[in-house]
Amino acid sequence: MKASQFLITTLKEAPADAEVVSHQLMTRAGMIRKLGAGIYNYMPMGLRVIQKVEAIVREEMNRAGAVEMTMPVVQPAELWQETGRFEKMGPELLRIKDRHERDYIIQPTSEEVVTDVARQELRSYKQLPKNLYQIQTKFRDERRPRFGLMRGREFIMKDAYSFDRDEAGAKASYQVMAAAYRRIFDRFGLKYRAVAADSGAIGGDLSEEFQVIAATGEDAIVYCPASDYAANMEKAEALAPAGPRPAPANPMVKTPTPGKSTCADVAEYLGVPLATTVKSLVLATDELNEAGEIVRSQVWLLLLRGDHDMNEVKVSKVPGLDKGFRFASIPEIDAHFGCKPGYLGPVGLKQPLKIVADREVAVMADWICGSNEPDFHTTGVNWGRDLPEPDLVADLRNVVEGDPSPDGKGALAIERGIEVGHVFYLGTKYSKAMNATFLDTDGKPKHFEMGCYGIGITRLPAAAIEQNHDERGIVWPDAIAPFTVVVCPVGADRSEAVKAAADELYAGLLAAGVDVILDDRGERPGAMFADWELIGVPHRVTIGDRGLKEGMVEYQHRRDAAATKVPAAEALAFVKGRLGV
Amino acid sequence: MKASQFLITTLKEAPADAEVVSHQLMTRAGMIRKLGAGIYNYMPMGLRVIQKVEAIVREEMNRAGAVEMTMPVVQPAELWQETGRFEKMGPELLRIKDRHERDYIIQPTSEEVVTDVARQELRSYKQLPKNLYQIQTKFRDERRPRFGLMRGREFIMKDAYSFDRDEAGAKASYQVMAAAYRRIFDRFGLKYRAVAADSGAIGGDLSEEFQVIAATGEDAIVYCPASDYAANMEKAEALAPAGPRPAPANPMVKTPTPGKSTCADVAEYLGVPLATTVKSLVLATDELNEAGEIVRSQVWLLLLRGDHDMNEVKVSKVPGLDKGFRFASIPEIDAHFGCKPGYLGPVGLKQPLKIVADREVAVMADWICGSNEPDFHTTGVNWGRDLPEPDLVADLRNVVEGDPSPDGKGALAIERGIEVGHVFYLGTKYSKAMNATFLDTDGKPKHFEMGCYGIGITRLPAAAIEQNHDERGIVWPDAIAPFTVVVCPVGADRSEAVKAAADELYAGLLAAGVDVILDDRGERPGAMFADWELIGVPHRVTIGDRGLKEGMVEYQHRRDAAATKVPAAEALAFVKGRLGV
Repeated sequence: MKASQFLITTLKEAPADAEVVSHQLMTRAGMIRKLGAGIYNYMPMGLRVIQKVEAIVREEMNRAGAVEMTMPVVQPAELWQETGRFEKMGPELLRIKDRHERDYIIQPTSEEVVTDVARQELRSYKQLPKNLYQIQTKFRDERRPRFGLMRGREFIMKDAYSFDRDEAGAKASYQVMAAAYRRIFDRFGLKYRAVAADSGAIGGDLSEEFQVIAATGEDAIVYCPASDYAANMEKAEALAPAGPRPAPANPMVKTPTPGKSTCADVAEYLGVPLATTVKSLVLATDELNEAGEIVRSQVWLLLLRGDHDMNEVKVSKVPGLDKGFRFASIPEIDAHFGCKPGYLGPVGLKQPLKIVADREVAVMADWICGSNEPDFHTTGVNWGRDLPEPDLVADLRNVVEGDPSPDGKGALAIERGIEVGHVFYLGTKYSKAMNATFLDTDGKPKHFEMGCYGIGITRLPAAAIEQNHDERGIVWPDAIAPFTVVVCPVGADRSEAVKAAADELYAGLLAAGVDVILDDRGERPGAMFADWELIGVPHRVTIGDRGLKEGMVEYQHRRDAAATKVPAAEALAFVKGRLGV
Repeated sequence: MKASQFLITTLKEAPADAEVVSHQLMTRAGMIRKLGAGIYNYMPMGLRVIQKVEAIVREEMNRAGAVEMTMPVVQPAELWQETGRFEKMGPELLRIKDRHERDYIIQPTSEEVVTDVARQELRSYKQLPKNLYQIQTKFRDERRPRFGLMRGREFIMKDAYSFDRDEAGAKASYQVMAAAYRRIFDRFGLKYRAVAADSGAIGGDLSEEFQVIAATGEDAIVYCPASDYAANMEKAEALAPAGPRPAPANPMVKTPTPGKSTCADVAEYLGVPLATTVKSLVLATDELNEAGEIVRSQVWLLLLRGDHDMNEVKVSKVPGLDKGFRFASIPEIDAHFGCKPGYLGPVGLKQPLKIVADREVAVMADWICGSNEPDFHTTGVNWGRDLPEPDLVADLRNVVEGDPSPDGKGALAIERGIEVGHVFYLGTKYSKAMNATFLDTDGKPKHFEMGCYGIGITRLPAAAIEQNHDERGIVWPDAIAPFTVVVCPVGADRSEAVKAAADELYAGLLAAGVDVILDDRGERPGAMFADWELIGVPHRVTIGDRGLKEGMVEYQHRRDAAATKVPAAEALAFVKGRLGV
């Protein structure tokens, strides 16, 4: 490609609404242009990256035996009504009406359509297993789209769906995909982790997120540097402390803590470690009658150590809370504690309630909690002596750096990541909802066992940039760079030799199958280099008159601090060597 | 690809709503599945064809210097309001609202968005010419979608838009595209014609349709077998007859024609050639005031020979009718003719009106028309003698087979075609509406000169099938076949030799880069052959035990009546020879 024939539209400034670096740099590098909230033109420079991502994904999906098809962007509502998602999903499902006032949606994913395909086309166990995928435009009507391609409304996703005879088959298909994802992410050339994720109501451990590591990532990733354990924050288990609960050492004392309503404030005010405080979270569950009216409510008190955060996914698995819960109302809190939030505690309740202690809290002695009286906390609180043992003990909290790894192989570390892939065992959730069956070996209809597997094709470049950039711009891995090599002649308009050498190197690289761009725009060197450093092409060869007179050209990798002189006659071989071609 | 790993879903019967052969065969061959009215899943077998079409289009567009980008499927209404198309377009423009009740459309094309890109990114004449294209999902909410991919609502289109400094540049860009389209259609391996088309209000001759020839095509294509003249029916000019008008030979006579209200009935009843009759078409034009109310109407009488059809595009170019016209109302007809339609004629009018005679009618003598009295026609009518010369003479009709070619090189022939591509010079229509300018050499802003260029990516396979099929199924050209070669082992489960020979040929073809499928499903030969003939893979090699014992396999092209025996040892070389690889 010659730059003069391409469309290079770099900008000096990022738009005011670009909050994250990938959004800023993709805009400045001319890779995307905003058309509306969360809706972007993929400009030629950006589309090249997207197409390289697509090509790698397609190749590895095909290698893994998946079969590509394309499902419509605009889908009739009927299938979505079969699973109930047409009604249940929030406004992020864009619902539309056609000229005949019939209901349609714009696909956010395609479980319904692919399950409909399966129930029509996969009639016999002989056709299984089958994995159908598409790389297609999706739309999610986010309330507050932002961060460029990181959280757009319109985006491209690769979504795959596996269909198997039985659970063992589905799990094998899941593993085939998980292995393919590792190959895909390896080929992208990015640092990433496959982390265990919560599989929600489906159960089992078959859910992994593929997280691109980046300091700016929105997800916390928990891993064990001493082993291959990795999980997302929702999933990572906080083990029960190893030792037994210490014996009480102090008497229980009510202490004034005027205006100190948080554990941190109380600890600081009392001059004690935050880890000696316990916070009280009050939840409620409702029992409904058939008309959906609340007939009975139960209030729950969750106790966590003052320096720990509640993990909603874990709480939602506590027996009794697993059918749904809400935060308690002020009247409910008042009825049980006789006090407003900020000074609550489990001692001296007005009405009984269910107490769930975090594993950590369950083995604490001499702890501090609210006294159920404004401006007072109680110190030296002890299970058994000052209040009954908790009704339940459970893992309720997010792990923190240094917690023991659930695999027993060391301490946990935490880093941040951007989720760009997800593999998930679905079981029969959709096949039962849509009565999608095949005839099994015994001639009887059986519901498909399914899995689903996504990769955010347009999100991946943004994640790659969050991980790989510097103050000058993007630093692409070779595999997904818009161009692998840029040849920059300096003063080609003044020097025939420069022009000839640049043309020759360009032609040589093209002939070797290298994705090379020749910058023949005639820009000044400073502007030209700034453009390519912003755009992030990994390999650059600069050819100038002065160097040529000494028989030299300059090679610089985007990560190199300075250029390397290379004999002009060896330039082609040198670059090919760097690329391994 | 091995068939067992692919998804082959052939059907014995076509769906009841499949009216055209391409819809029937694509459904039966498992290439598409209907999801809703005009909305289809592109099944794996069909997607392979679509992807081959896309790849050829992309390669030739790039070769022609066009630059690929992707514009969103969901587009904000604002840009469409700038050109007025948001309001002006009919309900085929699918208008939607997002969760914030803001207006969007699903793109049917992208003139507005690409013009917006140009006015932001192409600031200087130095960046021109530029041609931006995309291969992307489109939606047109057809009232009555049908014919499968031939007239779907959701479809894939390649749309390109050129931007130039001036008209000469735009015309050069147009010619570059027209040449690229010829290369593209040549590569598809289809019989096609590039035909001149009407360019509407834009003017000039720069509009060509690329029509795939098929007896079932919906468009009539006019061409001259003795030259390269080709045009669509709207555009093809009917020349004025060469000779002068004959002198009147007969007196004008009112003749009873009871109940004969059409020219054909009258000619038959009177025993005269249909070409001696003249039909009367009554139109009206309205003059509006600023409030859009009709202040004055003018009635027009168009006269065409009884055996000729009116051409609406040509009529819309007649001076006075070129601002829009309608058919006259019954009261208007009564006021001017004093008679109901069916017996109208230009002689003895109650009120004057504008008479426009087709070129052919203008040189007729002794013709027959209605008497403006029910059940009567008048014979022997002559211009000048019986009524004044017409106000205007114009080409008003569709050409017919045998008309002289406008290039003077012979007689016209007519065949049928399916439009799958269109190249069009747009001028400044969109750049002026959206004030899209660049700075020209003189430093002053100037509106872009534009062209637009479409190819119906998902329509092309349907058109290819309309052209290439037989009673057994589809016959694909090599370039866009879902697979180029199928290897069919017969009885591989019983014969190791068959299995080994098939595997070896399959591996050899794969290694040669041939797109080959090995049918390892274990189907009976009859079912297997029927599948591949239906699917239309052009080259088939059958390997059976009996043949192998004689050292032979069988090759058959999809168009061959019978198989050819080929020595097994030479099978690979034979097939490669047939493919030219």
